[in-house]
Amino acid sequence: MKPVALALLFLTTLLATSKASNSGLPLPIYPLQPLTGSGHDHHLHGISCQSWRFGVETNNIRGWKTVPLSCEAYVGHYMLGHLYRQDSKVVTNEAALYAEGLNLTKDGKDVWVAKPYNSTQFDAWVDGGKAPALPESLNLYKKLLSLGFKIFFLTGRLEKRREITDTNLKRVGYHTWEKLILKSSNASGTALAIKSSKRKELEAQGYRILGNMGDQWSDILGNNAGQRTFKLPDPTYYIS
Amino acid sequence: MKPVALALLFLTTLLATSKASNSGLPLPIYPLQPLTGSGHDHHLHGISCQSWRFGVETNNIRGWKTVPLSCEAYVGHYMLGHLYRQDSKVVTNEAALYAEGLNLTKDGKDVWVAKPYNSTQFDAWVDGGKAPALPESLNLYKKLLSLGFKIFFLTGRLEKRREITDTNLKRVGYHTWEKLILKSSNASGTALAIKSSKRKELEAQGYRILGNMGDQWSDILGNNAGQRTFKLPDPTYYIS
Repeated sequence: MKPVALALLFLTTLLATSKASNSGLPLPIYPLQPLTGSGHDHHLHGISCQSWRFGVETNNIRGWKTVPLSCEAYVGHYMLGHLYRQDSKVVTNEAALYAEGLNLTKDGKDVWVAKPYNSTQFDAWVDGGKAPALPESLNLYKKLLSLGFKIFFLTGRLEKRREITDTNLKRVGYHTWEKLILKSSNASGTALAIKSSKRKELEAQGYRILGNMGDQWSDILGNNAGQRTFKLPDPTYYIS
Repeated sequence: MKPVALALLFLTTLLATSKASNSGLPLPIYPLQPLTGSGHDHHLHGISCQSWRFGVETNNIRGWKTVPLSCEAYVGHYMLGHLYRQDSKVVTNEAALYAEGLNLTKDGKDVWVAKPYNSTQFDAWVDGGKAPALPESLNLYKKLLSLGFKIFFLTGRLEKRREITDTNLKRVGYHTWEKLILKSSNASGTALAIKSSKRKELEAQGYRILGNMGDQWSDILGNNAGQRTFKLPDPTYYIS
């Protein structure tokens, strides 16, 4: 959802007469991010934002709170430009190739676990119910359905956002899923631990997790990670 | 070692009068790579080489045999330009930060597992004993030694190359290590399985693998992977 949110922000920026940016300065990314840190520029050491993104996407740089201040424009342009979409496409293409190559048992237990959206910690955005789908993910979803996979959506969104999430999913084109698993209000631990635990439950119920896709490493590491995992790009957040 | 190998190749290319490139065409990368496949351009689907590299480095594209034919120049330039070195530096910087933040027991059991060189499947190059060190890796190595880590080199090179590897390591600045673990001639299975098994042995001997770094995902996935793993860039090979 962030890409479009950022797109709106940056379009606002580009339309220089906008009231929202009447300072003349580009709008920062963090209106859509919790600004909890210092920008962690100590991770840069004269390293380019491109290499910072490499470090983030390969899970070498972990536990960061915010995009480094000096990389905000870079990340904004990345998310709005062709590269984010192409980086997404390379992942969903590989996932489609993999999925097509499997021999499904078709007993209703062939499962693909996915996150319906990229992550956000910006609750107001979720509550608005206007999160768009990443087109590459939506295309893969349709392919997986046609191949006979059961889709399990597994997200760190809280249970109390079930209705808005359900509505939002349908609005943007996700109409069929086996289960939408949200985070219960009393769940504790990291996203990695909670998601691992949910996947373990699925496999205990006899489901075979053949694919698992997310934009955070915490979506696809841990136990019961699935027969194959796919990491979508997202240099805007780190969820451990 | 590949960067320099490539550097030599490309320098040869740039010096257009070289006998080695008297066709006038750029030399391909595969003189240093076994050309066993078709170039796997089916992974591209109109995707840029930059996104292909993203896919490779995030372990989304797996099991590829060769750099796609249309990405050879891109990969060559990447390896020779600043970006490969910067991408390496972001990894070794993070590793140094992590290592400095640990409280070592200093009972001789605090271990860092690393691969002494980037991978190559080009035996003649290994046998020449002229593989250079990646300066970023060498700097990290010195830092780790000064912090009190025991260094274990774990490589897929065969046992019969122990002497040349030993000599080569010392020549480029690696002078101290606890053990150089090579692949025995009768080892079977994937690199991932063999390396997992070796690490399991280390931990059975009471060593604590606090860090584990390699240029292949198969270096850092699997069991006993270590408390934290680091993935160095390498878009030239895939070893499963």
